[in-house]
Amino acid sequence: MVRLIALFSTPDDPAAFDAHYRDVHTPIVRRYPGLRDLRLTRPDGVGGRPAPFHLLAEMSFDSRADLDAALASDAGRESGRDLRNFAQVGVSLFIADDGVDG
Amino acid sequence: MVRLIALFSTPDDPAAFDAHYRDVHTPIVRRYPGLRDLRLTRPDGVGGRPAPFHLLAEMSFDSRADLDAALASDAGRESGRDLRNFAQVGVSLFIADDGVDG
Repeated sequence: MVRLIALFSTPDDPAAFDAHYRDVHTPIVRRYPGLRDLRLTRPDGVGGRPAPFHLLAEMSFDSRADLDAALASDAGRESGRDLRNFAQVGVSLFIADDGVDG
Repeated sequence: MVRLIALFSTPDDPAAFDAHYRDVHTPIVRRYPGLRDLRLTRPDGVGGRPAPFHLLAEMSFDSRADLDAALASDAGRESGRDLRNFAQVGVSLFIADDGVDG
């Protein structure tokens, strides 16, 4: 599996962010062709410190080619435009493909 | 499963970082009691942009209690001390427990 991972910084209005993510952004992501899984997690901090991010989103595909095709699809482009609507505070996007080891 | 996730910023000397991570840090992490999986991934960037992190490390446990016990163990404390030796450039640590949905 290959994952597209998005880490969202803590927004100014977490409730509004969550509502937009749930009601607008998630339906777009679920239209990605080839999407095998969407996992959303609220990070917890370690050792009593606050979590460094508000939301972890992991979108899984069978292959890097499928992931690239999803990003280039209508849903992928719409998702990118929507990110600019609600993720002003910051989002780190990256792809997790080959494991370096075990 | 519950994951302890570490995202390492790009170090000044990636080769030295990788050697320390492989030869010193990984053996400490593998001594965590209750560790079910250690997954190391070199992130790729999206859309031609560089990856925002150098290394993604995911350590999986059966439960949050097991994860907390691992962090409180001798290996957990040694790991924390070792982080301060080699992760000067920055590391984001968080725990991914319950999925918000799907």
